Amino acid sequence: MNRDKLLLTPGPLTTTLRTKLAMLNDWGSWDADFNAVTASVRASLLRIIHGTESHVVVPLQGSGTFSVEAAVATLVPREGHVLVLDNGAYCKRAVRLTSMMGRRFTVLCFDEAEAVSAAVLDEHLRSDATVTHVVLIHCETSAGINNPLKEVANVCESHGKGLIVDAMSSFAALEIDARNTRFDALIAASGKCLEGVPGMGFVFIRKAVLDACAGNSQSLAMDLHDQYVYMEKTGQWRFTPPTNVVAALHAAIEQFEAEGGQSARLARYTRNYQTLIKGMTGLGFRPFLDPAIQAPIIVTFHAPSDPRYEFKAFYAAVRARGFLLYPGKLTQMETFRVGCIGAIDAADMEQATHAISCAMQDMEMQRQ
Amino acid sequence: MNRDKLLLTPGPLTTTLRTKLAMLNDWGSWDADFNAVTASVRASLLRIIHGTESHVVVPLQGSGTFSVEAAVATLVPREGHVLVLDNGAYCKRAVRLTSMMGRRFTVLCFDEAEAVSAAVLDEHLRSDATVTHVVLIHCETSAGINNPLKEVANVCESHGKGLIVDAMSSFAALEIDARNTRFDALIAASGKCLEGVPGMGFVFIRKAVLDACAGNSQSLAMDLHDQYVYMEKTGQWRFTPPTNVVAALHAAIEQFEAEGGQSARLARYTRNYQTLIKGMTGLGFRPFLDPAIQAPIIVTFHAPSDPRYEFKAFYAAVRARGFLLYPGKLTQMETFRVGCIGAIDAADMEQATHAISCAMQDMEMQRQ
Repeated sequence: MNRDKLLLTPGPLTTTLRTKLAMLNDWGSWDADFNAVTASVRASLLRIIHGTESHVVVPLQGSGTFSVEAAVATLVPREGHVLVLDNGAYCKRAVRLTSMMGRRFTVLCFDEAEAVSAAVLDEHLRSDATVTHVVLIHCETSAGINNPLKEVANVCESHGKGLIVDAMSSFAALEIDARNTRFDALIAASGKCLEGVPGMGFVFIRKAVLDACAGNSQSLAMDLHDQYVYMEKTGQWRFTPPTNVVAALHAAIEQFEAEGGQSARLARYTRNYQTLIKGMTGLGFRPFLDPAIQAPIIVTFHAPSDPRYEFKAFYAAVRARGFLLYPGKLTQMETFRVGCIGAIDAADMEQATHAISCAMQDMEMQRQ
Repeated sequence: MNRDKLLLTPGPLTTTLRTKLAMLNDWGSWDADFNAVTASVRASLLRIIHGTESHVVVPLQGSGTFSVEAAVATLVPREGHVLVLDNGAYCKRAVRLTSMMGRRFTVLCFDEAEAVSAAVLDEHLRSDATVTHVVLIHCETSAGINNPLKEVANVCESHGKGLIVDAMSSFAALEIDARNTRFDALIAASGKCLEGVPGMGFVFIRKAVLDACAGNSQSLAMDLHDQYVYMEKTGQWRFTPPTNVVAALHAAIEQFEAEGGQSARLARYTRNYQTLIKGMTGLGFRPFLDPAIQAPIIVTFHAPSDPRYEFKAFYAAVRARGFLLYPGKLTQMETFRVGCIGAIDAADMEQATHAISCAMQDMEMQRQ
């Protein structure tokens, strides 16, 4: 069959037809009609974090990682010192991009099966006053951990340190409230829990630190301060925007709001997650994480011990039934991942676990 | 009426419905089906410049400027020295991004009404042996100039200098043949003369210089060598690709090939250009450039001398009739621009000039 597979991945995700249909226009990127779309998207994004008073939001072309790099390049001065709280591959990516741009950095390592610890951070900041900015990955999709954003933010605030949050996979699903959680920058992207299509990211920047960001970036493309100033002045993007992607995000946000916003989306994803866990544990699969720190975004499962298991064949057999799984990303053991996000619901997750069950039969695997 | 306006701009452009419909799928960015789309696009791009033997092509998320910055960051070593041939705003942008990333640079200035001179470049390279790379904007859309790529390439080759060509607005329309024109990097984007939608660029890199590019970039996102190595190894993009944009580009390239490739596209754009010039000069408008150096991509016209002319009102009156013009970008005098590219033909240009004529009547302007 030629239907699209359902994407059980950390993004790009399955989107609604309405979102995709919003791409069927040619927009003049200089024209008032398109500027209105951009302005509407920016205003909506700020409302999602209750940040209209405290923050601005700066959209940026490219993948989410481009926006993470841009946030570090724009927020951290050349002589700054970045402390990365590391419990997964996306943390290591943040370290790499910080290192490449020549900013001083320190890595505070945690186990990839555990949430980062605000207490350990507090201790570290007491021992090293040179740190200027802390980088936290809110939901580390390498394992699927929900890191304690609020606690980390409180520690950073009490030490007067800037906090840069990669909220790529959590934004619009997990609660983020700028009124009670202080961060200098928070980053997400179009193709994640807002259920738009991929092609742009966006960075919330705290107004109090915005002016000091001028001149920090060594990259023109990544300079969010420059992008912000130009956008405020003209209503336009500095460089050609991905117009169709922006229009799709606009449509996706309308549907997000109609669904009931972040709490409703979290409720749906939580139902997806619970349905997945019920189905998978019924098949004998074991989730990698302690449920207490598991975000209902993406779940890492131990690979089956059955010798007939092999990820590629397993992936193909599930794919043949219309569902795309995701490979594991842990350094220590063999795993695979199943995403709970996108325009999918609990009934889809029931079908997905049934497809996995059929794939196991194909491969003549024993239940675990 | 709620129809899309025709975009007489340097991009984003009017695209065909077939191209836009290609965005109506959700792709797994890790999946073989999507990898095949990426591979097909890359192979097609190399064929367009006859560069399969000599070059590789590296796609990059973001706007075209992101790819220009990435090319400079990846090709030019930290101790390199970039000479920018400057006859317009896109040249100045190349200077700015080179300067920001900390590479040494020199600007060789030309009049914005004249093509850059290969002879002057030759002279400059004789006088300054420290230059390592020359940056040329092939079609400078600030005025619309067709700069002499082949002559500049020959001078660079004879001096053993690297040449980085911003071919954003010329690629797929003007002839570029890697078999007889040596360049180290050449950059274009999805939303220009290939008539895809905006959201990604791509950079051709000469195989002979590829290995030496490792480690040059101070930006992870902009590191084309890293993107290339990962893509060759896995068939995937390093970071989430704009899947729908890539699929649209794939569909756009199929139509480009069916139309007859670069020569057929140039012929259509040339007819658009000639129809525009005929109509506009009939209305008394004067093109800014000498026709000998005018590319049939975008035409700069002098603003009318009639005191009732004002760009904003003129734009609005033409827009009300379904056509989007583009503001001028010259530093010295008031102008406006009309693009000849995109999924439009000579009949559209006849209608466009008629709309301009009606707009002049609205504004009670005299014919020039």
